[in-house]
Amino acid sequence: MAVKGIHHVGVAVDDVDGVVELYRRLFGAELEERELLEEQGVDAASLRVGDSRIELLGPLGSETPVGRFLADRGPGMHHVAFAVDDVRGELERLAAAGTELVDSSPRRGAFGTTVAFVHPHAAAGVLAELVSDG
Amino acid sequence: MAVKGIHHVGVAVDDVDGVVELYRRLFGAELEERELLEEQGVDAASLRVGDSRIELLGPLGSETPVGRFLADRGPGMHHVAFAVDDVRGELERLAAAGTELVDSSPRRGAFGTTVAFVHPHAAAGVLAELVSDG
Repeated sequence: MAVKGIHHVGVAVDDVDGVVELYRRLFGAELEERELLEEQGVDAASLRVGDSRIELLGPLGSETPVGRFLADRGPGMHHVAFAVDDVRGELERLAAAGTELVDSSPRRGAFGTTVAFVHPHAAAGVLAELVSDG
Repeated sequence: MAVKGIHHVGVAVDDVDGVVELYRRLFGAELEERELLEEQGVDAASLRVGDSRIELLGPLGSETPVGRFLADRGPGMHHVAFAVDDVRGELERLAAAGTELVDSSPRRGAFGTTVAFVHPHAAAGVLAELVSDG
């Protein structure tokens, strides 16, 4: 696979504003972008940390995927996103190999990206996102 | 803080050899280094994924920290490591700000690194490692 590197680490949080400020103080993180994804029930913030990114995910309601994650496990690491050039091509390769996927085709992600998720069952408990810009 | 970026994402696994091979197939990850850290009860593997790293952590026994993590939560994301130049200096800054730490002073990490951990209570549920090479 043509994974270019870790695009970001996704963190589920109760209070996006609070964690933006907390991570600024702890790690020097800088808010890069903020976006409400109504159809996914997510309030997303992209933080720059050095040459890497952390993506904060706050729930727009308790019955959203992130809301249920928080109710089950509390705040913390949610996914690892791997940068690729061709999300569709990588998905097809993984599907052909019998990999359990969350998304069978690419969809719109936050901040103008195209994304698809590999199921944690397939990746040693890690929810892995494939992401390309645009 | 002078965080330079994400050094690696740590993943707790039951079977290090199996996940080395799995992540090679799924994500093109390449095994970079392998090290037994007896005093920490960890079998560690550093995987290169594009220009980033994933660190696999296998337990040397059920009563090790990683063994207990696996018993409680199953395999999955364990920590995010942030690269810094001066682990001791950053720890002192965080301690002075009242940040809850796992390690009050730097210690030896895997693969010749110096590391210290910030407690998840202090960082929105994320176990955050500060790491420098050497």
